[in-house]
Amino acid sequence: MAELTGGHLVARTLKQAGVGHVFTLCGGHILPIYDGCITEGVDVVDMRHEQAAAHAGDAYARLTRNIGVAVVTAGPGVTDAVTGVANAFSARSPLLLIGGAAPLGLRGLGSLQEVEQVDLLKPITKGSWTVSEARQIPEVLTTAIRTALTGRPGPVFVEIPVDLLMTMVEDRFAPIPSGYVHRRPVSPDPDSVQALADLFTGAERPVIMAGSGVYWDDAAADLAAFAEAAGLPVFMNGAGRGCLPTAHPLAFAQARGAALGQADFTLVLGTPLDFRLGYGRPPSFAEHARVAMVDCDPVELGRNRPLELGLTSHIGLTLRQVRDALPKGLAQRFESWRQALRKKESDGQDKLGQWLDPGPFGCLGVGPSFAIAAKLVAPSQRVLLIAGDGAFGLNGMEVETAVRFKLPMTVVIGNDGGWGQIRNPQLSFFGAERAVATSLPFTRFDQMVEALGGRGMHVTEPRQLRPALEKAMGSGEVYCLNVVLDPAAYRRGGQVSMAI
Amino acid sequence: MAELTGGHLVARTLKQAGVGHVFTLCGGHILPIYDGCITEGVDVVDMRHEQAAAHAGDAYARLTRNIGVAVVTAGPGVTDAVTGVANAFSARSPLLLIGGAAPLGLRGLGSLQEVEQVDLLKPITKGSWTVSEARQIPEVLTTAIRTALTGRPGPVFVEIPVDLLMTMVEDRFAPIPSGYVHRRPVSPDPDSVQALADLFTGAERPVIMAGSGVYWDDAAADLAAFAEAAGLPVFMNGAGRGCLPTAHPLAFAQARGAALGQADFTLVLGTPLDFRLGYGRPPSFAEHARVAMVDCDPVELGRNRPLELGLTSHIGLTLRQVRDALPKGLAQRFESWRQALRKKESDGQDKLGQWLDPGPFGCLGVGPSFAIAAKLVAPSQRVLLIAGDGAFGLNGMEVETAVRFKLPMTVVIGNDGGWGQIRNPQLSFFGAERAVATSLPFTRFDQMVEALGGRGMHVTEPRQLRPALEKAMGSGEVYCLNVVLDPAAYRRGGQVSMAI
Amino acid sequence: MAELTGGHLVARTLKQAGVGHVFTLCGGHILPIYDGCITEGVDVVDMRHEQAAAHAGDAYARLTRNIGVAVVTAGPGVTDAVTGVANAFSARSPLLLIGGAAPLGLRGLGSLQEVEQVDLLKPITKGSWTVSEARQIPEVLTTAIRTALTGRPGPVFVEIPVDLLMTMVEDRFAPIPSGYVHRRPVSPDPDSVQALADLFTGAERPVIMAGSGVYWDDAAADLAAFAEAAGLPVFMNGAGRGCLPTAHPLAFAQARGAALGQADFTLVLGTPLDFRLGYGRPPSFAEHARVAMVDCDPVELGRNRPLELGLTSHIGLTLRQVRDALPKGLAQRFESWRQALRKKESDGQDKLGQWLDPGPFGCLGVGPSFAIAAKLVAPSQRVLLIAGDGAFGLNGMEVETAVRFKLPMTVVIGNDGGWGQIRNPQLSFFGAERAVATSLPFTRFDQMVEALGGRGMHVTEPRQLRPALEKAMGSGEVYCLNVVLDPAAYRRGGQVSMAI
Amino acid sequence: MAELTGGHLVARTLKQAGVGHVFTLCGGHILPIYDGCITEGVDVVDMRHEQAAAHAGDAYARLTRNIGVAVVTAGPGVTDAVTGVANAFSARSPLLLIGGAAPLGLRGLGSLQEVEQVDLLKPITKGSWTVSEARQIPEVLTTAIRTALTGRPGPVFVEIPVDLLMTMVEDRFAPIPSGYVHRRPVSPDPDSVQALADLFTGAERPVIMAGSGVYWDDAAADLAAFAEAAGLPVFMNGAGRGCLPTAHPLAFAQARGAALGQADFTLVLGTPLDFRLGYGRPPSFAEHARVAMVDCDPVELGRNRPLELGLTSHIGLTLRQVRDALPKGLAQRFESWRQALRKKESDGQDKLGQWLDPGPFGCLGVGPSFAIAAKLVAPSQRVLLIAGDGAFGLNGMEVETAVRFKLPMTVVIGNDGGWGQIRNPQLSFFGAERAVATSLPFTRFDQMVEALGGRGMHVTEPRQLRPALEKAMGSGEVYCLNVVLDPAAYRRGGQVSMAI
Repeated sequence: MAELTGGHLVARTLKQAGVGHVFTLCGGHILPIYDGCITEGVDVVDMRHEQAAAHAGDAYARLTRNIGVAVVTAGPGVTDAVTGVANAFSARSPLLLIGGAAPLGLRGLGSLQEVEQVDLLKPITKGSWTVSEARQIPEVLTTAIRTALTGRPGPVFVEIPVDLLMTMVEDRFAPIPSGYVHRRPVSPDPDSVQALADLFTGAERPVIMAGSGVYWDDAAADLAAFAEAAGLPVFMNGAGRGCLPTAHPLAFAQARGAALGQADFTLVLGTPLDFRLGYGRPPSFAEHARVAMVDCDPVELGRNRPLELGLTSHIGLTLRQVRDALPKGLAQRFESWRQALRKKESDGQDKLGQWLDPGPFGCLGVGPSFAIAAKLVAPSQRVLLIAGDGAFGLNGMEVETAVRFKLPMTVVIGNDGGWGQIRNPQLSFFGAERAVATSLPFTRFDQMVEALGGRGMHVTEPRQLRPALEKAMGSGEVYCLNVVLDPAAYRRGGQVSMAI
Repeated sequence: MAELTGGHLVARTLKQAGVGHVFTLCGGHILPIYDGCITEGVDVVDMRHEQAAAHAGDAYARLTRNIGVAVVTAGPGVTDAVTGVANAFSARSPLLLIGGAAPLGLRGLGSLQEVEQVDLLKPITKGSWTVSEARQIPEVLTTAIRTALTGRPGPVFVEIPVDLLMTMVEDRFAPIPSGYVHRRPVSPDPDSVQALADLFTGAERPVIMAGSGVYWDDAAADLAAFAEAAGLPVFMNGAGRGCLPTAHPLAFAQARGAALGQADFTLVLGTPLDFRLGYGRPPSFAEHARVAMVDCDPVELGRNRPLELGLTSHIGLTLRQVRDALPKGLAQRFESWRQALRKKESDGQDKLGQWLDPGPFGCLGVGPSFAIAAKLVAPSQRVLLIAGDGAFGLNGMEVETAVRFKLPMTVVIGNDGGWGQIRNPQLSFFGAERAVATSLPFTRFDQMVEALGGRGMHVTEPRQLRPALEKAMGSGEVYCLNVVLDPAAYRRGGQVSMAI
Repeated sequence: MAELTGGHLVARTLKQAGVGHVFTLCGGHILPIYDGCITEGVDVVDMRHEQAAAHAGDAYARLTRNIGVAVVTAGPGVTDAVTGVANAFSARSPLLLIGGAAPLGLRGLGSLQEVEQVDLLKPITKGSWTVSEARQIPEVLTTAIRTALTGRPGPVFVEIPVDLLMTMVEDRFAPIPSGYVHRRPVSPDPDSVQALADLFTGAERPVIMAGSGVYWDDAAADLAAFAEAAGLPVFMNGAGRGCLPTAHPLAFAQARGAALGQADFTLVLGTPLDFRLGYGRPPSFAEHARVAMVDCDPVELGRNRPLELGLTSHIGLTLRQVRDALPKGLAQRFESWRQALRKKESDGQDKLGQWLDPGPFGCLGVGPSFAIAAKLVAPSQRVLLIAGDGAFGLNGMEVETAVRFKLPMTVVIGNDGGWGQIRNPQLSFFGAERAVATSLPFTRFDQMVEALGGRGMHVTEPRQLRPALEKAMGSGEVYCLNVVLDPAAYRRGGQVSMAI
Repeated sequence: MAELTGGHLVARTLKQAGVGHVFTLCGGHILPIYDGCITEGVDVVDMRHEQAAAHAGDAYARLTRNIGVAVVTAGPGVTDAVTGVANAFSARSPLLLIGGAAPLGLRGLGSLQEVEQVDLLKPITKGSWTVSEARQIPEVLTTAIRTALTGRPGPVFVEIPVDLLMTMVEDRFAPIPSGYVHRRPVSPDPDSVQALADLFTGAERPVIMAGSGVYWDDAAADLAAFAEAAGLPVFMNGAGRGCLPTAHPLAFAQARGAALGQADFTLVLGTPLDFRLGYGRPPSFAEHARVAMVDCDPVELGRNRPLELGLTSHIGLTLRQVRDALPKGLAQRFESWRQALRKKESDGQDKLGQWLDPGPFGCLGVGPSFAIAAKLVAPSQRVLLIAGDGAFGLNGMEVETAVRFKLPMTVVIGNDGGWGQIRNPQLSFFGAERAVATSLPFTRFDQMVEALGGRGMHVTEPRQLRPALEKAMGSGEVYCLNVVLDPAAYRRGGQVSMAI
């Protein structure tokens, strides 16, 4: 029998859930959690803004396919993390945000940093809870973790009043649950397997659109095997990018518009028919094309477009079973279709490998946090962060965190002296003399990074770029390449064409 | 008859409401608002993070005692602003946050940056609305403005789908309302005036505790006159600080604990009995002391402590009427009480003048935004920003905004290489070897500010400080003094004692 | 020193707040409250549906101008009360709904009748709370009561977990607050008084529109005196009806359309410019008429129409002060205006006395509850309930409650064998052959009431009505007159014209 | 090409979804829906309270395993339906509530029955939407239907402003979606099948606890075959009751306490480990028992107790696959275990057949609505409603609806002159002299039903009951047997023992 603080109960529950790092910014309401983390051997990574901590927890979840955790203090700590949670919600990332809170015993009196945190987080989480007795901490946290990880994954929030974090509890009254998350894969029923095989058999121009679900189901190998068996062109978006190596003969990218627009059958795997796919509607998808979909969220099946077949089964299991049901020699049939698409692919395609992007929330400023989490999870890998000058301004201060934790990375800033993606349509619609709020100076981020303890280089000529990159990536330091771009290039119909 | 875009309707409504500047960060969903602002002559101040834009709108509201406005794009734009809104909510500041939104015509399909913004903002605003027809824009905005400004002031949120911002509307179908905000001051009834006068007459050790409401009611002169008439010691907190000049013989500060603890009658003006006043309970307030209160929010009257009298009337009008009801010669009676308190005041008291602090939300990182807004509202005044090194990291990037808009200010960073306010209790409770997440390097913010286009100086010796300040404040530039402090000083029971 | 259960704390707090009756329907989660009520001498009135209990609490609040209370059990008890709360919200009635709740110690496990009650009630209350420690019960309840009674009044909700209701607490740790509600009337400032007087002086055709706020401010006598001093025609709606006796020479009713449409100045007292007043817009109000308004809710001042003047002051105090500022002989000036309006008044006007109607929510079925509350509050008064046959079906079972509590009343059902108010427009729009869902049989409610222990009479001829009424009202029993109406009369352009 | 009203679009969408009846109470905001229903051939069943309409829609959903629909008017119509929705939420029933709403064009002005309906319904639904353009009606409704039917089923809410219901839309701009609900069953992966088989093989005292999920997955036959193959005792709760005929040798009921308490392995099918199963904890479940669970909601898997295995697969498919994996002769092994349990079963067990109960919300008053829906769905079946006298009072008026729609049924009221289930613990805890609010008169519901057009009989002697039942069930009428019970019987430790 032992007595633990509520903070220690938090740490022990996280440890048992397989959490190795928590991301945070300090505050008086959460100190007992830190103390528990030291005892339990959970690393505490303190960042410079709670938004950055939440983004890092999100990335950690994506990279480990397990719960990612950010711990923030009450009030402004929680509100600062809101964007990180919202981004995780859009990206279906199982982030657990733990928030400090005003003491339960003073609730309603107007204590410091008291705000309706649980309600605030509800619209952007799968669940949002407060804890009302210290002994319930493990139970509430594991409920939150299970909620985050199962079904359609997504973020959750748990608020713990500071007096409960400081309360001592006998461990037998607050056992750490086990066996509380069940993510066994499920298969389609035999009829569906056959129906899906028949859809391929009956098609002339089939394609596969693979999204983040393929990554979450760890189904990249199954996807490759399936595509190869049937000779199917594969397009990838979101975290699905990288499922097939870009050099794979069935991996396509630039031909996407033509492929989806002309396909008579598209199998969509693990990505909704949202704005990124033109809502699955013409002109993005042909009007009479057949569409089938596999996704963990049944509410996405049939949204925006009728489906021939919608399945909530595991993507890998599904592809394996359908592959067995395909007729022999199917791949040959699609030869000319593949060739037609291959012609649309440009030569100089991007070579994407392991890749993290913000997700469909379109959230700028996630970069430094994502890079920090990636380096922590995979210390032996090289980490490259690419950001615009506008976006880097949002959370660029986190370079200091990377330096402090000795997490070498290369930060390439494409600096066009403005918010180019917004400025360009603004110029078109409203004209140059009415284009306010989108110009920036060509900030010397290289110098700023040096001030924060890293290294920087000002890259003003294309020929400087390759050696600069080599130097940065070999340096073992946090290195910023501040690459000056021509803001007018895009608008001249030209192309940013520094040869890397 | 003319046709206007929805964006133009926004700008015209703001113009008529007396708004001179809007704070923003660009995004595709809000460009038509910028265009309208150019036409209507509303200045657009683009910052580097939406949080900073919201903080600036909050400060603008406080400084003008009118609506302050931040305009942010959909999704991450809105979520980034959440902390700014929450801070304004705690501080009762009438901030209007206007958020872009996914097109109404695509609602529910999964378009870019679609999120439940209206629900998200509800717990931290007085009201949160979406607009469903372009012609309703002026009506919804003015409803929001009225809600923000009346009763207990506070922030509001209006979401406008981008398709409505681009819709053309005939102006006669969307008239800009007038006469829609009514903030006439109200007086107490005669019985209450007499009752309040009697409370002073019957007291032996009365004090006045003046908070932000005195500022919002513009009642500083009335307060001074009242205090002088009755010889009452006055304490000030929040935006009430500065209502009496610090040199005023009735202005007290350091004696607050003794005064509230020994007073037999306290009149609380425009501030709740929250954590800052020990909830109005012992030991902060004497158990049997009488307390009366004037506050615009009747829900605060009687919260945490019984009141002899609670009034929702205008503070200035109330003090004027009660002054007339006081007996002659009252001031003399309290002479010894005033002297006893005066002895508790230290000599080297702070000389506070016009002052902005974050408010009761305890929100770090508001500084650069508040300084920017202050300089815009009062260009001829010198602006001094004081921040810790931790806090400055949150939104320090906004120095670039100040430089870009040519808003000279002096930024003094008290750099103790850590989060001292948290680290010190942590060291006491948990010991040095368990104090994680609260140490920082002594960042060269002076260099960072120079990278962002300002000037910086590294101040390492107390004797450097005064000349550095003089240089900075005279420079006409954005100037950062990075003042290195001894992190152990506080814990040695000592005192940070650079002589300014 | 004594120990009390949480339930007893509830009762003691209510007793101190002046609550004489609570309305309820039993349930296991709230039994300790009943027990406390017996000890404290608070009468428990158990009804047959929680909706009816909430309506009765609403009526009790209106009739006493103090808090009204309904106590309901967890889960379905709370959801059943929702309509009663929503109706009180629209009518600005300070109803306190106390809900039982699943034990705190089992929260989140899936216990009986666990549902998110606090969130559910938020959109229809001024505040919604849960209690997390037994000792906080008095504090939370008094916070709720203060919130309900001050500013714009309205309903509140407090949820108390059953384990807390059964917990024993030493009374010194849970003192019952006093001095926690402050509703001192406030006056306009002198400038506003003069401005309002000037508006009358400058008018040629002024009117007063008096609403429920006049009743809530207990300002009927002030209104009469003011109207008489200035010779102003007065119209009344909502709970304002009855402020002036219908026989008063300045009380008007049928001429309302003409008066508001032709007035050049209208003073609106204590009622919003909502659908009942045509939103204060043409054609209901003349386009160029001046309008001023006095209302406790500043958010209503300027809504839908510009105001010359908007005041949040007490209606009675305001009228008294403005009366003193009016020029002599003003009444004479409006003589011909009054005569013109008088001609529009029909002779057979309704003689309304003390009156309760559902309020602007348009909620059917409130009748039996309102009648029960009225008889409890004013046992010596005769209570007459008038209902349609559709509406009576909603909560007609409450006749049993009236019988059980020996509360004699007369229930007149205007039985047109259908939902006439809906059926008539339906017939016009869609035709008789498509008019579904609006016909009912001519139910023998008189027999139903007899089955429930009351008395009933079937009234089929107009001449039967007067003697039936006399018999019923003199009987000292719960008496139902089931009056058969001709459903086609209304549509024939005719009029229901039973002479009472 | 044709033009349809928004109301017609509603009806057409419902028709295509397979909806045969909608339950309603009339109101001006929803008339166009009725008109569409007539055209499309959807029957409109108008009831006497919206709560009753929602309960009927819930029952319709349960009985058809498809969407059930209630249509209610704005404001009080929606609030009146709240309990019905909350009950469906607890019972996982896919009810679609369609609410009228104030006109979009008047939103925010204070129009009749305007209330925040969408927010109000959020805590008790899977989704809650408003419609902002008439052409979006089919899309929003089908999104709602998909949400209700997939994953863990549950209720949804859609609000449609009345002006949109009246708007004419060309049908090509508002196509009725097809292929938008996908509920293909999913199987476990092979490893899980084996793991589950092994759990049975390794057990000595296994049991199956079958809940509502078995009914929803239409898996009764699979359950019987599985139980027979392995010789497993089966217990049933909720809608699972009746999955095995009560005469089946493996169907158990009274021995439940012993079985769950002694079992070393329990397979829980389609029911959460909530209060009905003692949270899956001791003493209800043995401390070291193994537990596995199959449920459509992964958030229930591991809640309250660790599971050896948790599956979200289809119950029928799962049982079929596991059955194939069981070793031969397993059934024999459990022979003595089955016999031991059989001894605990009393002889006079209930003979349950097709059964509807309120579900875990513990909601009284659902009976008449459930009976009405049952008779509509299965007109040739006899319908028997059993209610207490307290519960019948809540919605007893619906007898009139049954009469009006010619839906014969037998209503047996067990009339103990009080709220026995509450009164009995109250008497124990507080004593007879403090037992308020739980006594009722022995109301003559038989007479009340006759007043409403049905037939009634007062049953005061046990010997009257059987002939009364025979008469009622053979009568072809709505027949109420008001059976007087001895309220003290229960407390005497006796038993209500009328022999039916």
